[in-house]
Amino acid sequence: MKILHSEPSCDGFRMPAEFSRHYGCIMIWPHRRDSWQYGAYEARKAFAEVIKVIAKSEKVIVCARYDDYDSARSMLPDNVRIIEMESDDSWARDVAPTFVTNGSVIRGIDWGFNAWGGLKDGLYFPWDKDNKMARKLCDSLDADCYDQRDFILEGGSIHTDGEGTLLTTEACLLSKGRNPDLSKEEIEEKLKKTLGIQKIIWLKCGIYNDETNEHIDNICAFTAPGEVVLAWTDDTDDPQYAMSKSCLDILENTTDAKGRPIKVHKLPLPKPVCITQKECDGLDDLNGEPTRIPGERLAASYVNFYIANHSVICPQFGDDNDQQAIAILSRLFPDREVVGIQARDILIGGGNIHCITQQIPFFD
Amino acid sequence: MKILHSEPSCDGFRMPAEFSRHYGCIMIWPHRRDSWQYGAYEARKAFAEVIKVIAKSEKVIVCARYDDYDSARSMLPDNVRIIEMESDDSWARDVAPTFVTNGSVIRGIDWGFNAWGGLKDGLYFPWDKDNKMARKLCDSLDADCYDQRDFILEGGSIHTDGEGTLLTTEACLLSKGRNPDLSKEEIEEKLKKTLGIQKIIWLKCGIYNDETNEHIDNICAFTAPGEVVLAWTDDTDDPQYAMSKSCLDILENTTDAKGRPIKVHKLPLPKPVCITQKECDGLDDLNGEPTRIPGERLAASYVNFYIANHSVICPQFGDDNDQQAIAILSRLFPDREVVGIQARDILIGGGNIHCITQQIPFFD
Repeated sequence: MKILHSEPSCDGFRMPAEFSRHYGCIMIWPHRRDSWQYGAYEARKAFAEVIKVIAKSEKVIVCARYDDYDSARSMLPDNVRIIEMESDDSWARDVAPTFVTNGSVIRGIDWGFNAWGGLKDGLYFPWDKDNKMARKLCDSLDADCYDQRDFILEGGSIHTDGEGTLLTTEACLLSKGRNPDLSKEEIEEKLKKTLGIQKIIWLKCGIYNDETNEHIDNICAFTAPGEVVLAWTDDTDDPQYAMSKSCLDILENTTDAKGRPIKVHKLPLPKPVCITQKECDGLDDLNGEPTRIPGERLAASYVNFYIANHSVICPQFGDDNDQQAIAILSRLFPDREVVGIQARDILIGGGNIHCITQQIPFFD
Repeated sequence: MKILHSEPSCDGFRMPAEFSRHYGCIMIWPHRRDSWQYGAYEARKAFAEVIKVIAKSEKVIVCARYDDYDSARSMLPDNVRIIEMESDDSWARDVAPTFVTNGSVIRGIDWGFNAWGGLKDGLYFPWDKDNKMARKLCDSLDADCYDQRDFILEGGSIHTDGEGTLLTTEACLLSKGRNPDLSKEEIEEKLKKTLGIQKIIWLKCGIYNDETNEHIDNICAFTAPGEVVLAWTDDTDDPQYAMSKSCLDILENTTDAKGRPIKVHKLPLPKPVCITQKECDGLDDLNGEPTRIPGERLAASYVNFYIANHSVICPQFGDDNDQQAIAILSRLFPDREVVGIQARDILIGGGNIHCITQQIPFFD
């Protein structure tokens, strides 16, 4: 593994869209007892369900801590590769490398990671194990690695169409806990040079109460070039309404890198999903403080799906809109099977199916 | 990774010779402070020298503990892959899988490992991290894994010509700390079925004071089908003389699996190498006891070389015979460069260059 200090786009590399062909997917076996209720017992079952579906059409590589290897091996299918790796938590989207390709090889980008806001408004301390994963994953895959650790970024805060357009949110990328010394223009420049982007579409915000400072991957995702899904509610009394409406207004009044207008498909939200007393009772404290409060609204959204080679894996919440979400995605991904997985036990950790995955683009 | 409970030879798999083409080589970054003097500082430099030579002609995969990853990465070349893995010590030959192949894929054999004798006469306790490595290495390589953990065996106790013959020592394989409930015939049967062997040549013993119960890989090694090198001294007062002579007598009076007589090339031993007071001072105690005593004779032997695709890496001891060993091996391996590496800092740990390597056969 070479450590590279150049800019990927200058080397002819760019980040492909998630709906492009994958080599595989990186995930992390959950373990953190203040994130996952009851010793991550139910979370592991939910992760395993997700992994089994993805592994039908691409290689899944699961990072497990030394102590968790046997648990992972016993719960996962044979065709899943498990590699030993320490982690602080289990959000592969945010701690694994963002992969770029020139068509024939892949390279990883090792962004700085500070647990979604560092000492300003991050979610845990320390985060050094997470921050070391991207580089080690490149090493394990024999992929060269771009050192971008001076720039704080999580994979969940960016979506690309693979044709020069990037979607993100101001709430996250301009947050004070990430790169406070960089202007919006400097951040734009960084994203363009590292990811091979020509046009950035900035939404103002994400999903209500999303503790990542409102990652893009919970509210809006490309389904094809020029087409996105947007998490939506018609309930004007819900604080999410104004947030989603502001995103819609921006999307309907912009064009992508190719000059195309954006076709927006509304993906209805489930009714508010709130954590119960019993679920909170199953969470260890963090530094003597509870990590969740009973009744707290979780950032549930169907947009947090993962696009595998032959399937789309979509969270389900036991809500009336579960089936509608699957129907809409099935229409948008006619060549893929849309598989719903009950994801409440992933959501309790703070994210969802997209957050626990990181695709590796296909390469020859 | 599938866990297989069948016998490799019944599945059409066999262990190739070390002098056959390799895919690569597994090694482990040293760390154990009661094995390696002064915090493994010098040992790491010696390991790095070995790795650099091997990595010129095959892929080297180095297992490093979480805490040691940065050290390994900073000391090793870019083309070496470093993977995170816990270990008790650093003897890849004995804890990594023994690989078998059917010509198109490789599979690993996960033998039981008990630190060279378990509670009977093993060298440390616990050894569970080492014992888990073979399986995890198979997983990391996407190789299926034969579960042979009920049978205690280290890779350093066997050598094969790849044509049906296996060399081993009675001192080791019939020791009371390994498989005391199995007869010699049952052990023969196990080796034949797992490794694809038809004929086992049992030497009585190995190198004097070799704490592995006298592994074969320190005294005798195949250099080609029908040809071996044997560690040798002409000093009849040295206890090694009778040991080497007994091996010579056996080798000169047997044939290999193909019915060929064995051509024995004597490889002179260095003069006795003994550990110094200063070296012992650099070793942490184990359970309150020193692991070495000043003046203790170490099991130094030039036979403990590694055969890489384009080179043979041979230990050097600052002895008059260093050059002769290289000259003999150069004659026996005319297509490979024989590279000598000062190996005292490896020897202090109890083994040598062959012991810290494990080849992965080439596969398509």
